[in-house]
Amino acid sequence: MPKKLAKTRLKCKGFLAAGVSSGIKKGAKKDLAIILSETPCVTAGVFTRNKVRAAPVVNDIKRLKRSKVRGIIVNSGNANACTGGAGVADDWAVSMAAESALDLSKGDMLTASTGVIGVPLPVDKITLALPRLKAALTRDGFADAAEAMMTTDAFPKAHFVKGRVGAVEVTLLGLAKGAGMIRPDMATLLAFILTDANIGRVELKAALRLAVDRSFNSICVDNDTSTNDTVLVLANGMAGGMEVTSGGTAINAFIKLLTELCVKLAKMIVEDGEGATKFVEIRVKGAGSDKEARKAAKTISESMLVKTAFFGADPNWGRILAAIGMAGIYLDQDKVDISLNGICVARNGIDTGKEKDASWAMQESEIVAEVNLKCGKGSAVFWTTDLGHDYVKINSEYRT
Amino acid sequence: MPKKLAKTRLKCKGFLAAGVSSGIKKGAKKDLAIILSETPCVTAGVFTRNKVRAAPVVNDIKRLKRSKVRGIIVNSGNANACTGGAGVADDWAVSMAAESALDLSKGDMLTASTGVIGVPLPVDKITLALPRLKAALTRDGFADAAEAMMTTDAFPKAHFVKGRVGAVEVTLLGLAKGAGMIRPDMATLLAFILTDANIGRVELKAALRLAVDRSFNSICVDNDTSTNDTVLVLANGMAGGMEVTSGGTAINAFIKLLTELCVKLAKMIVEDGEGATKFVEIRVKGAGSDKEARKAAKTISESMLVKTAFFGADPNWGRILAAIGMAGIYLDQDKVDISLNGICVARNGIDTGKEKDASWAMQESEIVAEVNLKCGKGSAVFWTTDLGHDYVKINSEYRT
Repeated sequence: MPKKLAKTRLKCKGFLAAGVSSGIKKGAKKDLAIILSETPCVTAGVFTRNKVRAAPVVNDIKRLKRSKVRGIIVNSGNANACTGGAGVADDWAVSMAAESALDLSKGDMLTASTGVIGVPLPVDKITLALPRLKAALTRDGFADAAEAMMTTDAFPKAHFVKGRVGAVEVTLLGLAKGAGMIRPDMATLLAFILTDANIGRVELKAALRLAVDRSFNSICVDNDTSTNDTVLVLANGMAGGMEVTSGGTAINAFIKLLTELCVKLAKMIVEDGEGATKFVEIRVKGAGSDKEARKAAKTISESMLVKTAFFGADPNWGRILAAIGMAGIYLDQDKVDISLNGICVARNGIDTGKEKDASWAMQESEIVAEVNLKCGKGSAVFWTTDLGHDYVKINSEYRT
Repeated sequence: MPKKLAKTRLKCKGFLAAGVSSGIKKGAKKDLAIILSETPCVTAGVFTRNKVRAAPVVNDIKRLKRSKVRGIIVNSGNANACTGGAGVADDWAVSMAAESALDLSKGDMLTASTGVIGVPLPVDKITLALPRLKAALTRDGFADAAEAMMTTDAFPKAHFVKGRVGAVEVTLLGLAKGAGMIRPDMATLLAFILTDANIGRVELKAALRLAVDRSFNSICVDNDTSTNDTVLVLANGMAGGMEVTSGGTAINAFIKLLTELCVKLAKMIVEDGEGATKFVEIRVKGAGSDKEARKAAKTISESMLVKTAFFGADPNWGRILAAIGMAGIYLDQDKVDISLNGICVARNGIDTGKEKDASWAMQESEIVAEVNLKCGKGSAVFWTTDLGHDYVKINSEYRT
């Protein structure tokens, strides 16, 4: 994985960014970023399903009711979660201060926060840093912004894709934070996608939902969802061309690019886990439907017994089969085939005697587990990690 | 916890038991047990909800359609799970051999197995040991039987309760196996309850369901369910008295005793975890209903982030609140109170500044986490463990 981002390649027409240190984090670490579009953006968002929602999530849901926005202000080091009504007011104070500093209208800025919870957001530190942040805004500022979003991420996460949508070439640039083994603070996942595509609001929302289901909602780390999880997409239309509407080839091309970018960012999150030693891809096919395949893949990805077996390179396929048995889907246990890195360890629900070969194959740092339920045409792919000693170490010693 | 069972106290009128070594396990460890009633028993069972079911579970469900049974033959060291049609036939072979050796009728013996999965059951070893097992049957054999059920349990689990049911005093004797951190082999939970109460079949079934919900279904260890989980209750009626029927005080007295016994056995299972350093009780009150309270307690009990925080004595109540937020219940996050070992760490969803005190209080080996949702009258109690380094060690190195 890239530990340093290539500044000069992370660009998207009409978008500026900056990341600075405002003093929320100790040391002089970057902890505050702004992403700004030169022109108003169509926008869509997907937020945590957790009923306990941080203040920026509560407020962004309201802000997204407006038709267009101009940018996002994001801080790390403090999640502004479990902070009550004062936290909600603090979040409004931040967005309004940013709008004022950038000469924008009320409601132009979305917000996001990530870091420790239950601690009041230091609004003063943020407002004091705004002039410096404004001065730093540049077309090359995305690497700095990605860095300012990090909490315990081992590396900043950014990626871009380019492709033809309708008659024009568009760019999609993505920044993300989150760590595979989901370390402190509920493992907040933040992802911001910026694009110059010219697309309608309804279409953008539908495309984001599809792409998120196949990427950020297809990774499993420790079954907990954060109070702050947020995925936002901003489209400023500066690539020109006809507006992308539903029903054509252009929307499909856009969905494909957006999904590709989100999958790449989601995999980076899975790969970034101090506690993880292996990257695991779970492929389920032959399920009654894609939905049933997803359920099976999710349950396997979440099983602590399966994940510790991966850590130990133990081809304990019974744990995988039993995980599928918990998924609440149609299943004939006497039909199931299971392969680990290409070695078939169970055929028709019975051991093949290939455990030794499989154990060797599982020494690799990437494991592909393939399950064929042989009862339908549904399929799904999930990404997860193994469960190693360091997961416990990191999560039990955090804050002590 | 008792590491040795007191042989002479574990008795129940009309019941015999024995446990011997048949050679399924290495060394001369006990691995085969029989529990036998001198007279036919009314019986009821609760089995794993996993759709992948071991052969003895598949067959016991059929056997329970008979009106009465005489006993149970149980082996450890091999789960007879994921063994296909041959495994089902092997299980019938074991029950029929036991019935023949004990001069019983076909269908008189229930079966249970626990141990490694995917390996054929060594039926010959079991049948060869039957004469010795028969010769060893005695009223004092329950400690041996409990020992023969163990897989990686650190100690055998047995307990009894006595009390008045209607006009007579009855005894309920329970044997169980299973380990808190649910170590190898899907953490099979087996529990057998023997009683001399005179009770109807329908009433026994209903009582068992209630007792299991408040005990074995109120413990959480690692979210995985086994292919072999089985709870059986056998009632031979030898205490005499009127038959316990629904609607009277007698059935309530019986349910109370059965629940008390099951809770005791369930707690022993939670306490027996090499990977666990703390025993945790989760109390939820103020939920919209008991069912909603159960959902919240279960989600907290299952959260790896919560459990690793317990391991580190970290009063990270935000993790508890966020876990409740995932439970899919009605919740007003600005009302929630959370206490850890008596120290209120969050009031109305906001930090109380008592984290240091709470961290001290959490150094104890038992942690009581109390959550008041303040939106209704529903309550529930769950038992779980912390999540320590050894969980990973044990589950990743099993079989290697």
